[in-house]
Amino acid sequence: MLNFQGETADTVSDISADARKRLDNKTKPPGSLGQIEAVAVQLATVQGSVVPVVDPARIIVFAADHGITAAGVSAYPAEVTAQMMANFASGGAAVCVLGAAAGASLEVIDVGVNADLEQLTGVVHAKVRAGSRNLLEEAAMTHEELDSALQVGREAVVRAVEAGQKCLGLGEMGIGNTTSAAILTGLMCGASATEVTGRGTGLNNSQLSLKQRVVADAMQRHALLADDPLECLRNAGGLEIAALVGAMLEAPAHRLPVLVDGFIVTSAALIACRLKPSVRDVLFFAHQSAETGHALALRQLAAQPLLQLDMRLGEGSATALALPLLRGAAAVLCDMASFADAGVSTAE
Amino acid sequence: MLNFQGETADTVSDISADARKRLDNKTKPPGSLGQIEAVAVQLATVQGSVVPVVDPARIIVFAADHGITAAGVSAYPAEVTAQMMANFASGGAAVCVLGAAAGASLEVIDVGVNADLEQLTGVVHAKVRAGSRNLLEEAAMTHEELDSALQVGREAVVRAVEAGQKCLGLGEMGIGNTTSAAILTGLMCGASATEVTGRGTGLNNSQLSLKQRVVADAMQRHALLADDPLECLRNAGGLEIAALVGAMLEAPAHRLPVLVDGFIVTSAALIACRLKPSVRDVLFFAHQSAETGHALALRQLAAQPLLQLDMRLGEGSATALALPLLRGAAAVLCDMASFADAGVSTAE
Repeated sequence: MLNFQGETADTVSDISADARKRLDNKTKPPGSLGQIEAVAVQLATVQGSVVPVVDPARIIVFAADHGITAAGVSAYPAEVTAQMMANFASGGAAVCVLGAAAGASLEVIDVGVNADLEQLTGVVHAKVRAGSRNLLEEAAMTHEELDSALQVGREAVVRAVEAGQKCLGLGEMGIGNTTSAAILTGLMCGASATEVTGRGTGLNNSQLSLKQRVVADAMQRHALLADDPLECLRNAGGLEIAALVGAMLEAPAHRLPVLVDGFIVTSAALIACRLKPSVRDVLFFAHQSAETGHALALRQLAAQPLLQLDMRLGEGSATALALPLLRGAAAVLCDMASFADAGVSTAE
Repeated sequence: MLNFQGETADTVSDISADARKRLDNKTKPPGSLGQIEAVAVQLATVQGSVVPVVDPARIIVFAADHGITAAGVSAYPAEVTAQMMANFASGGAAVCVLGAAAGASLEVIDVGVNADLEQLTGVVHAKVRAGSRNLLEEAAMTHEELDSALQVGREAVVRAVEAGQKCLGLGEMGIGNTTSAAILTGLMCGASATEVTGRGTGLNNSQLSLKQRVVADAMQRHALLADDPLECLRNAGGLEIAALVGAMLEAPAHRLPVLVDGFIVTSAALIACRLKPSVRDVLFFAHQSAETGHALALRQLAAQPLLQLDMRLGEGSATALALPLLRGAAAVLCDMASFADAGVSTAE
């Protein structure tokens, strides 16, 4: 149940009930829009209004490198993170064209890319460190680095709210980050390394075995931390995942609906919801990815993903594809005629 | 395999292979956009271009009444069809607000509503008959009525093409039409009445039993016609389903991608694809509805639905929600940078 600062649980449940009643009076059989109706009610509840607004919407991509790539856990070289930043800036990446097609603006934030990107325009420069530390050797972040990365996420949300954004999609870029996400998912869900470790951007069998060993080793070393989500995050990384957690922790105070992308963003959601349960109420889950462990994380969050398209790209690509579903849900609640308005007979 | 007039199978397979190759060179792990990539290839193949275009897009709603409603097969009174026509015209129905949210125009066509709608502006008047005949007592349509209804559908597609539309969503309205769709699905899939008969807009258990008996009876009487899809359609109705079949038969010649809505439109697809197999190549399936029998029909058509949102409204509502996925697929193929364009390294 949502419980915003200064708001009673009663007010929240009134809005939710009012939204549901309005939906039942719309010119359609009750419940016939299925999950779209659930989305409409959640949007109304998050925003505290039975006429929820989704636009303007912004997709935020947090990017960082990962020390763990030294262990060979990714099919792509670590330099791809920096190369992709240029691709984001020039509009050529998947999330750019999908975001544009969906009518969302895009903000790309360097939280910790291991390259000097200062010359790159069209990117928010908020580098905490040039990549996280190798989590096999030490904690991925110091306490100060963790705090700074969380703050980068919080500030991105404040900036979006100040710019009038009504809905956020959260995405990420970081070669190696499915390894961090697997460790966090394993720790938060009490699952084994094999259950949470997938092929990421395309590992072969021997690479997958190596990654599973890395994840298993990290989980074993950090098992005692499972009750301390922030320490799990600090140890397993990465900087962009910490920024995602910060963004999620900030969203409820602004009544901001947040679309969660894939496996990595969902691992941040596991941490954020553990730290602050009211985060869960503002989250919408764009899709269920093909990455091993995502279904498990979604189950843990009692999340009903909007799309199942066998995607495993990340970047926020699925939030761009799911945004129109939120827009449609809002339109149903705001713009459809009621039976009384339209003079349509109800069921006999 | 698509085989448009005057085009060799080789040309078609060239475009398909070219589209796939381009997708594999885009800055993303190969195949990582899952079903979106399959949609992109199909769009390219249908349009004969590796830069497919989805906009402008139009949703067409064919509406008609059904004599079979006299048997009590619907939760709503038959008058609702006519009432909903006014609601479509004034923009208050689900497909109106979802279509607007998705940036699609809407055309609503009276193929056979049992009311005088001549005064209603914003509707295409193409009434063949004031409702189909009661299929329990006689064929739902005469041969002439069937031909006229098919022609209404064909003309709607030609009109859309002449207006520059690049993609169509097909929807329907007609109290009682899940009964016709169930009979057609049963006959085309060789399934039993219980497998294909659902609660439509919300039948209770005793109403459902009645509907199942109606469907079983009709299927039994028409079992010998299963090899003659047009005769099945003429006997089981309805006029809007015939118009949908006509529209689908017309689309391939114009290389027009068609989004199929729910159970009723899919039943039309079963007929159209049987009559002309190349129809299948232009069809995209918006969703899998909650209506019994839809999953079965989709399987028969080897269709991979884009959405699974537990919807059961019809009207074309799901085509509005799925259209942005086609738009996204086209954007990926048309606008994403290649690895070479962007200077991004490929997998190691």
